[in-house]
Amino acid sequence: MTIQTETTQVGIVGGGPAGLMLSHLLSRAGIDNIVLEARDHETIKNTHRAGILETGAVEMLTDYGVDSRIKEIGYEHHGIDLRFNGESHRINFKELVDASVWLYPQNEVFVDLAAARSRDGGDVRYEHTVIGVEDAETDQPKIRYTDHEGNEGVIQARIIVGTDGSRSFCRRAIPSETRQEHKIEYPFAWFGILTEAPPSAEELVYANSPRGFALISQRNETVQRHYFQCDPDENPDDWTEDQIWDELQARVDGPDGFQLKRGPIFDKTVLKFRSFVAEPMRWGNLFLAGDAGHTVPPTGAKGLNLAFADVKILFNALEEFFKSGSTTGIDNYSETALKRVWKAQNFSYWMTSMLHTRDDATSFEARRAIGELQTVVGSKYGRQYLAESYCGWPHE
Amino acid sequence: MTIQTETTQVGIVGGGPAGLMLSHLLSRAGIDNIVLEARDHETIKNTHRAGILETGAVEMLTDYGVDSRIKEIGYEHHGIDLRFNGESHRINFKELVDASVWLYPQNEVFVDLAAARSRDGGDVRYEHTVIGVEDAETDQPKIRYTDHEGNEGVIQARIIVGTDGSRSFCRRAIPSETRQEHKIEYPFAWFGILTEAPPSAEELVYANSPRGFALISQRNETVQRHYFQCDPDENPDDWTEDQIWDELQARVDGPDGFQLKRGPIFDKTVLKFRSFVAEPMRWGNLFLAGDAGHTVPPTGAKGLNLAFADVKILFNALEEFFKSGSTTGIDNYSETALKRVWKAQNFSYWMTSMLHTRDDATSFEARRAIGELQTVVGSKYGRQYLAESYCGWPHE
Repeated sequence: MTIQTETTQVGIVGGGPAGLMLSHLLSRAGIDNIVLEARDHETIKNTHRAGILETGAVEMLTDYGVDSRIKEIGYEHHGIDLRFNGESHRINFKELVDASVWLYPQNEVFVDLAAARSRDGGDVRYEHTVIGVEDAETDQPKIRYTDHEGNEGVIQARIIVGTDGSRSFCRRAIPSETRQEHKIEYPFAWFGILTEAPPSAEELVYANSPRGFALISQRNETVQRHYFQCDPDENPDDWTEDQIWDELQARVDGPDGFQLKRGPIFDKTVLKFRSFVAEPMRWGNLFLAGDAGHTVPPTGAKGLNLAFADVKILFNALEEFFKSGSTTGIDNYSETALKRVWKAQNFSYWMTSMLHTRDDATSFEARRAIGELQTVVGSKYGRQYLAESYCGWPHE
Repeated sequence: MTIQTETTQVGIVGGGPAGLMLSHLLSRAGIDNIVLEARDHETIKNTHRAGILETGAVEMLTDYGVDSRIKEIGYEHHGIDLRFNGESHRINFKELVDASVWLYPQNEVFVDLAAARSRDGGDVRYEHTVIGVEDAETDQPKIRYTDHEGNEGVIQARIIVGTDGSRSFCRRAIPSETRQEHKIEYPFAWFGILTEAPPSAEELVYANSPRGFALISQRNETVQRHYFQCDPDENPDDWTEDQIWDELQARVDGPDGFQLKRGPIFDKTVLKFRSFVAEPMRWGNLFLAGDAGHTVPPTGAKGLNLAFADVKILFNALEEFFKSGSTTGIDNYSETALKRVWKAQNFSYWMTSMLHTRDDATSFEARRAIGELQTVVGSKYGRQYLAESYCGWPHE
């Protein structure tokens, strides 16, 4: 059996939103690329994930012609609600920092990007499993894969990019002695539900309560997404619908009488929490972007946004490299991207620690968190600082 | 032997700056008070402590006629320097939030207040040791003391206030079942020196370094105060002057060539770190203010400032009580004061955790702290948020 070898300029491992966005940008700039994705289109389309896009991420979709549906079926949010001691405190992004975020599920972003790639003749291959990344320290790195029929193939590229998510094959292909891994585990997780109900609030409600954190969020007019902090070992099947609604309600109860709008629950999942950074985000001619390089806890809604920010920096560097031969951009990629990554890690950690309750937390820690929330909401500067971080710092 | 009993309206236990300021305000309002202080005047005068006064604390001195020396020998600072990765980042208070702080040692504040009390005929008794606080839950609470000759006496007051510092006798007189204590210990301390040398910088330099935190501060033109993070069990005598200077210098080294100005070291101490809050700050007719109720780590320079804020709230409440008989103010005192206390605890904890290095810290934590410093200094809102907290929130 002969193994087919193809050549391209950039081989992209992973066809989620980060990989497709990079492919889209490269193709627009006339740089050849091939995307390999292990899953099929339907599976990714039906994988529900976070749905908050920063100003800068929305701009990437709109500036590069992938925005037809976000403006139709997405929702622009001008703020969030920080709820503690049973009281709501609105953080008005528009007023504070003249910015907004968009509620638009990650799988819809995937659908839009996949459609744009298809429309523009992009080379995106689903059900192609990468089984080897070779010669990454040379100018002829190779990706070895098997397709859905089990046929093996090789793509030889000038540059390989791993956008293959938090369990990244590409990251693990980098010799462990040439990279560092920084991480923390959290002693809690999120119990997430999808429910057929009207929205309980117009914007996201982040609630700190003595029973733990809760997030009241939305999907559209008829489907809502809510979460509450739980034990990482929690089994969703142990909870009845009434128990879930009672627990969510208890965490947002307050003198203002805020009442959740209940409905049938059709999806229950436990979301693990993790903060992770691989450093550097490059090995020879292999680059990592998005979840392949870093994972953030969902509290700051930074996951996809950080991936898009990586892609923007990497695309600019690759365009410079392929047009002029200059390696300045690609040599600085890891450092430039990591600067934002650590800011986002900090923001996610901050929001998490301020809003969640740890079983092992002292009474000092619980009161300090309330003191911090009081300081933030009681100060215009505090609200601006939080709003700016939430809506996203300017792209490089 | 007969025991002398005197009566007054407010009996104040503790004649440090907080007790003397309260006495000063009460006397100005025509409310009788007696201050008992265990130490003698000279001892307090020579106890070196923190020296940063918030805008609001300076206003209390100036508004109430105790400001003759601060404007003469104090120094107004319009900012601080946050130093990390070997680079300085100025936080310009004046520009950011139109505020400033004053460098003026706490023992000088004591000298000024003691002089003002003496000038105005205040009843301040040094070398009077309180040995009992009795009947605090009644309308005739009593303070039992011994004077410097060993004679016992009793002061019967309508209200007793404990401003007797972190080891407060008054706090311990409150039945433990009626109060909560919230605290954290830190796995490090500050090694502090006084040196005869010119200033190394015009303003305070807060330095985060891989070797740990350092603070470069000033006292006047010829004497400087510096600190560096150390083990809580460190013995100052184990360090030569050269070793101390080398360690301080290593923590502020950077490409800008920042050099400390060395001189003979004439004082070395190890300052323990602790965050502590007693709740509530009242039991019957006994009230706690300042360090008696709470301790903050020195990183946020909040200790004396928080004490003055307590005194201001308590004075307003007592004036209302003695003039009109209304108990609204004194009934709300603890809750009102604690709201600021927890904001200050949070700020002190935040500055501490962002700037110090823990031996048990993961590589994630160290990088996250740098990410946080980058976010703060890289954002006008971040700098404003920090500046506002450092210069102090408005008094109630």
